Amino acid sequence: MSVDCLFCRIIAGEIPSYNVYEDEFAFAFLDINPIARGHTLVLPRVHVTKLAELEGEALSGLAAALQRVAAGVEKALEPEGLNIFINQGEVAGQVIPHLHAHIVPREKGDGVRFETPVVKLAEEEFGKVSELISKTI
Amino acid sequence: MSVDCLFCRIIAGEIPSYNVYEDEFAFAFLDINPIARGHTLVLPRVHVTKLAELEGEALSGLAAALQRVAAGVEKALEPEGLNIFINQGEVAGQVIPHLHAHIVPREKGDGVRFETPVVKLAEEEFGKVSELISKTI
Repeated sequence: MSVDCLFCRIIAGEIPSYNVYEDEFAFAFLDINPIARGHTLVLPRVHVTKLAELEGEALSGLAAALQRVAAGVEKALEPEGLNIFINQGEVAGQVIPHLHAHIVPREKGDGVRFETPVVKLAEEEFGKVSELISKTI
Repeated sequence: MSVDCLFCRIIAGEIPSYNVYEDEFAFAFLDINPIARGHTLVLPRVHVTKLAELEGEALSGLAAALQRVAAGVEKALEPEGLNIFINQGEVAGQVIPHLHAHIVPREKGDGVRFETPVVKLAEEEFGKVSELISKTI
């Protein structure tokens, strides 16, 4: 636990939250600034900032909890779709530096929009980038 | 394998792709319509549409691959941040109905933007929604 972390304090019960699920590895509660009704956060109990830092069972535990909660949100609210996302780094929209996945129920005309530039990569650039990444894995 | 599925055909090697990783459970390649340099897709070999449908080792296998590939993208390209997301359903932006996670390297001023409405929920609505969801899990 990190004493300065809002999410660690929520998990510890020091700060109230609208909890929807918890187990040995993960904790889930409603986002207090929702972008949709039912916007839920699922996070590992262990304080890490990035997905790459999760070790061993904490990773599969988080995946299992994410799946359970996503299925629960679908059953409970019957949305037309779901966005499930992790933002890593301030530039990507991460506000609290404790890894968390957002589950956002989606409906037609809800105003949520992912605005993306058109990125044109040359054919050889695809080859170069895929090689760069695959070499590091 | 679903013979009508573009991603199943890519996994089977019937359609070329810029692969970055593969193992028993998962497959990763560059998105051919990238929203950033290094935009990578990670998917289960098994053809399912939604996260809730993945069973047993296929789930932990996908999580492990997603973590490895995300770490690889970070090492290879050193972006300022990452967005990792799954879109489920057409309304949420899912184009190919084979579950896949996007990994998008982020940099300041890259033009990627998640536009979200302000949703104001009454205090009692938070309680109601969290109860609704938690009951189904």
